[in-house]
Amino acid sequence: MKENIITPSILSGFMELLPHDQMLFNKILETIKLSYERFGFIPLDTPTIEKSEVLLAKSGGETEKQVYRFNKGDNDLSLRFDLTVPLARYVAQHYNDLTFPFRRYQIGKVFRGEKTQKGRFREFYQCDIDIIGNEKLSIINDAEILSVIYSTFKALGFDDFTIRINNRKVLNGFFDSLGIENKAEVLRVVDKIDKIGNGAVNKELNDLGIDQGIAQKIMMFIEIKGGNTEVINKLKQMEINNDLFKSGIEELEKVCEYIKYFNIPEKNNAIDLTIARGLDYYTGTVYETILDNYPSIGSVCSGGRYDNLAQNYTDKKLPGVGISIGLTRLFYQLKEAGIIGAIKKSTPTVMLVIPMSDTINNALEFSSKIREAGIATEVFFNEGKIAKKFTYADKLGIPFVVVIGEDEVKSGLFKLKNMLTGEQETINADEIIQKIKDIK
Amino acid sequence: MKENIITPSILSGFMELLPHDQMLFNKILETIKLSYERFGFIPLDTPTIEKSEVLLAKSGGETEKQVYRFNKGDNDLSLRFDLTVPLARYVAQHYNDLTFPFRRYQIGKVFRGEKTQKGRFREFYQCDIDIIGNEKLSIINDAEILSVIYSTFKALGFDDFTIRINNRKVLNGFFDSLGIENKAEVLRVVDKIDKIGNGAVNKELNDLGIDQGIAQKIMMFIEIKGGNTEVINKLKQMEINNDLFKSGIEELEKVCEYIKYFNIPEKNNAIDLTIARGLDYYTGTVYETILDNYPSIGSVCSGGRYDNLAQNYTDKKLPGVGISIGLTRLFYQLKEAGIIGAIKKSTPTVMLVIPMSDTINNALEFSSKIREAGIATEVFFNEGKIAKKFTYADKLGIPFVVVIGEDEVKSGLFKLKNMLTGEQETINADEIIQKIKDIK
Repeated sequence: MKENIITPSILSGFMELLPHDQMLFNKILETIKLSYERFGFIPLDTPTIEKSEVLLAKSGGETEKQVYRFNKGDNDLSLRFDLTVPLARYVAQHYNDLTFPFRRYQIGKVFRGEKTQKGRFREFYQCDIDIIGNEKLSIINDAEILSVIYSTFKALGFDDFTIRINNRKVLNGFFDSLGIENKAEVLRVVDKIDKIGNGAVNKELNDLGIDQGIAQKIMMFIEIKGGNTEVINKLKQMEINNDLFKSGIEELEKVCEYIKYFNIPEKNNAIDLTIARGLDYYTGTVYETILDNYPSIGSVCSGGRYDNLAQNYTDKKLPGVGISIGLTRLFYQLKEAGIIGAIKKSTPTVMLVIPMSDTINNALEFSSKIREAGIATEVFFNEGKIAKKFTYADKLGIPFVVVIGEDEVKSGLFKLKNMLTGEQETINADEIIQKIKDIK
Repeated sequence: MKENIITPSILSGFMELLPHDQMLFNKILETIKLSYERFGFIPLDTPTIEKSEVLLAKSGGETEKQVYRFNKGDNDLSLRFDLTVPLARYVAQHYNDLTFPFRRYQIGKVFRGEKTQKGRFREFYQCDIDIIGNEKLSIINDAEILSVIYSTFKALGFDDFTIRINNRKVLNGFFDSLGIENKAEVLRVVDKIDKIGNGAVNKELNDLGIDQGIAQKIMMFIEIKGGNTEVINKLKQMEINNDLFKSGIEELEKVCEYIKYFNIPEKNNAIDLTIARGLDYYTGTVYETILDNYPSIGSVCSGGRYDNLAQNYTDKKLPGVGISIGLTRLFYQLKEAGIIGAIKKSTPTVMLVIPMSDTINNALEFSSKIREAGIATEVFFNEGKIAKKFTYADKLGIPFVVVIGEDEVKSGLFKLKNMLTGEQETINADEIIQKIKDIK
């Protein structure tokens, strides 16, 4: 190697894909995008870099440590670490130009300088939807969000997944009724039950100074299981005289009622009283989504309802509800678990046209015709043995090849080779177009 | 305002769009993407942040000053400032896993801390395609790139544009024949002729120490005009005995020959001997694209051929040819010039379903049916006056509205309101789907 050559590499914690994986990744991203759009969510694209003063208006602690923050000239800059804070800033800033309820989706990279470990990324795609109301927002939206999750994961090819729902008011009201003061900490412990188990949760509650009698009540509460109606009835039977608790049950009941109208099968949703979501800003409905056969992956789509999205940026009260899919991590985990990864195609090309040296002009004309019919078409220009050109098509997983020689030019009939089946057919250009469109 | 409220704003030099503009922007981006894919270019997505050591391997001067570079932990990081250097790094790093010629496109944001001025952005989208050969790459690819530019701008709705082509070998060979040593500087001056005019170019050449006799020869050379064949003949008639010059003419001639087979109309391409492209790394064909009626916008799509893409990262010789569309700037300029901007639609939603309070479940079923037929559908949940709900559809530019009351539920017939024409039709759900699909 020459001395001045720098070994090409990327930073750890950053994802970069080879063509076939990139094709697969893009297909998943496109499916999510289409699903979001079918529900009328509006695309948004906020800057990657924002003013630190604005972006970090509220955050502190762990988040702030992870942020990529730096100076350029006189500016104190930060890379966005999620898509929710930019949304809050956007809605406040453009309030007068927006129509409410404001339904937006945003798919883009966010950046967090986390400790690198397997399956965690420092630069990753989030695919978010949120519905923002002006002053108020109907609870039906909370059910609709569930419907979007359901439709999206169905569109991605999943059948066995459960969208777990809960309501923070139920949790907070219940804790209030027990006289618990450090509710946020208790919530965080309860939220970990799937990871650490009942015994450890009980112990951590004790460590927080929770009396064992009360800890036991909490344990009994989060062990309430059953169908949605059953759980709601059990909650009602507790007869806890706390307004927050009651209002939480009411919301949960309404969401479950509307879920039925949205035609979400029973097996794909379940109330789960242990779901709390770590983040502080949720105030009502919360969601998590589990792939039934791969629970260890954890939640693949989470979110919830918040009372006031943009309080750091405006006096306006803007309640909202939303979810996020962490696509980079999801893709990595689906690959690791062998759930996806069988596709071989590593190009959008559907047809490779191979000219003989004296038929290049004919090959170009032919390929233009195929391409204009909407079929991704490529001509192999480099000279070389014909076998090598077929190898190129094979390696990239291009499904159809046509070789154009003198005979083809004279007769207007071409041998369409199907690279998957090995079949060969001699037909004209229009028939080729029809054939490929039929198969696609 | 409360005291703890931070005024929401973004950094200057960064673009953020309102929904209707964002929809338009995405449509343009999607058109470019589709056009690139139809030619068989493979999507690529490299990290936004890379190691400074790798990303800045070669650059210096102006570029390096503009780079967003910072430390995080022990890492010296930089945001990508173009998509070409990451491509070079990618191809060198994954050389053994790639199939050559490697045809890739990448659409993504790049970052340059330029001086802020109207129409210049610090964060902007580039839409790049490149074809990378292993050791060699047929000159036909140079003509094909022209065909991609042509097809892309046609797909974007443009008719009157000119792809200007030149060849750096012709320029360099000619300068060599005149004994000019500071060719790079002379190239930069020649490249400015459109902006500063003949007189100023002549003067700047003198300032560079170019003898007036030679300056005159340069001026005569860059004033050669005419059809492609005519220009090539004039170059040949100069009978300059320089191998580089001759080889440049030969390449230019071949590219012009293949352009014909690609069916690119004569009015959309022209040899222009003043095109040099500022960047050092081009070695053969160079391109610029001008909108005929808006020459002041400058080139909207530029690029060229380079001998050796990845010499900083590998011993392998990887020649390539490619182009870039600076989409953020282009979008801004098309808006400013009033060329685009008439669309009113600011949501993907095609149908808004308005339920009466007691028909929500029917409205949800109805909307699911429409949505499953592939039509983006939204239900208006918030309570309020019906006029307000129509205003919502009107403001967002939603083309169809259906109100669902008891009568509709009973009869299975719905009033489909066309918001553009005001027309109203009473038909069933299947007919609605057919109707909308026919119009779309």
